[in-house]
Amino acid sequence: MPARKSKSEAQRAPEEFDDAVLRSFVGYNLKRAYLTVHGDFIASLAGLDLRPTQFSALSLIVDNPDISQTELARALSIERSNIVLVVDDLEGRELINRNRVKTDRRAYALRATLKGRRLHDKAVAQIRAHEERVLARLDPAERRTLIEMLNRIER
Amino acid sequence: MPARKSKSEAQRAPEEFDDAVLRSFVGYNLKRAYLTVHGDFIASLAGLDLRPTQFSALSLIVDNPDISQTELARALSIERSNIVLVVDDLEGRELINRNRVKTDRRAYALRATLKGRRLHDKAVAQIRAHEERVLARLDPAERRTLIEMLNRIER
Repeated sequence: MPARKSKSEAQRAPEEFDDAVLRSFVGYNLKRAYLTVHGDFIASLAGLDLRPTQFSALSLIVDNPDISQTELARALSIERSNIVLVVDDLEGRELINRNRVKTDRRAYALRATLKGRRLHDKAVAQIRAHEERVLARLDPAERRTLIEMLNRIER
Repeated sequence: MPARKSKSEAQRAPEEFDDAVLRSFVGYNLKRAYLTVHGDFIASLAGLDLRPTQFSALSLIVDNPDISQTELARALSIERSNIVLVVDDLEGRELINRNRVKTDRRAYALRATLKGRRLHDKAVAQIRAHEERVLARLDPAERRTLIEMLNRIER
């Protein structure tokens, strides 16, 4: 075993940790930034009683009228069984309608109601404000660069 | 309501969704990239029977001998009650030792065992290989830029 240049607790000042190995992984920094943003995101939607997946689903339904549950699950990379729960909830709150598809009796075409579109627009405004808060240290060009790099990782 | 330039399902090709609103949020792109990386990360550790938080905790204990549970929870931004479960598990597998602190009878000083250090080193190698896979489309300079931007969001 090579000697490690670590300090025992007695020598260590509060908040002083050696996390260099963890921080050398892009994934660890990605997780920590994600958790920071996610916490504020949840809070930003709380007043509207929307969880992140409910918002994402509602947003896709608003912008893609007659999208099916299968398409919605694929677009969000979510298990189909989970999307059913989300859609049930949105329908129960009269934010969307489920309509039978004539050509496929097993499928539903989803559409946002006026109430759903209004809640969506309100949520979008609150999320924009949330992003201004959590991304205050990145200018617009940096935000574009960041999104572009994140998309290269995702694909 | 302004007219929306969306297509109904009949007109829409498979996989063609309008997700421009979601994609305009940095947070959504961050989440999607995080979930992509996280999935491969979990898989990369599976053969070692380590979950992400177990690895992070073990790594900090290896590099910070005699760290306390309270310090560990703070370093990982995890609830103290959750860190106790992780530490219990690592101790049960003889990857770490818990030692009483003379100056504080309620505190434990945590140290990795030889078995723990060996498992940690193996995990680090597997995670480096995992990162090479998921970050193949980013060169070293881009990875540094990405980490730097993520850290500005986190702090």
